[in-house]
Amino acid sequence: MIGRLNHVAIAVPDLASATALYRDQLGATVSEPQAEPDHGVTVVFVELPNTKVELLEPLGEGSPIQAFLDRSPSGGIHHMCFEVDDIMVARDKLKAEGARVLGSGDPKIGAHGKPVLFLHPKDFNGTLIELEEV
Amino acid sequence: MIGRLNHVAIAVPDLASATALYRDQLGATVSEPQAEPDHGVTVVFVELPNTKVELLEPLGEGSPIQAFLDRSPSGGIHHMCFEVDDIMVARDKLKAEGARVLGSGDPKIGAHGKPVLFLHPKDFNGTLIELEEV
Repeated sequence: MIGRLNHVAIAVPDLASATALYRDQLGATVSEPQAEPDHGVTVVFVELPNTKVELLEPLGEGSPIQAFLDRSPSGGIHHMCFEVDDIMVARDKLKAEGARVLGSGDPKIGAHGKPVLFLHPKDFNGTLIELEEV
Repeated sequence: MIGRLNHVAIAVPDLASATALYRDQLGATVSEPQAEPDHGVTVVFVELPNTKVELLEPLGEGSPIQAFLDRSPSGGIHHMCFEVDDIMVARDKLKAEGARVLGSGDPKIGAHGKPVLFLHPKDFNGTLIELEEV
């Protein structure tokens, strides 16, 4: 069912300094910061030959990554995102097998403009998994 | 400098049940468990079209992932591994810019038989980064 690893997302308290680490120390190609007010984050994409790392900084009140940074002020790996062909088929299969979908249980439009959902980390070894339909 | 994302490593307390989650619920192709006594882990490879997820269970006394599981008993994302062409060039550049290499500071032979090193998570937004020469 799951396809490519679309990205690994890292929550960071300071996007400019995190971007500099990936660009200057690790020598990666990084994008300009992109504000996603609907998703409560500003994102920098670290482009790798086979996938992306996304650096996420909270934007506005109630950012979905703020609680994570309150627990881990220096940041950390927040989630990983796998691609699926059909997110409703994926959701129904996972729910039938007892996995919990966060929020309403219905896919939402994610930061890339595609339908996404998040699986409960307690059902997947403490790992927050995003599924994105591509 | 960094190239492909070689893998994302997830520490798990029970490799059999974690493997079943990725194989049966997420529908991924998984390997047989592979004991790596020299590295203190048993590994299952989750093969994705563009990279790998590695599920790691502690093996023997003093496993390098035991302290992580003591803090996070249900598991979690432990590190991510980027490929580099020349690990000594990478190490010297990173050290010159103030990044700390874990352990002796010299690369070791990793679980894939290639030279690896780990960077201090405090220098990279709370993220443990492995570099592997390929």
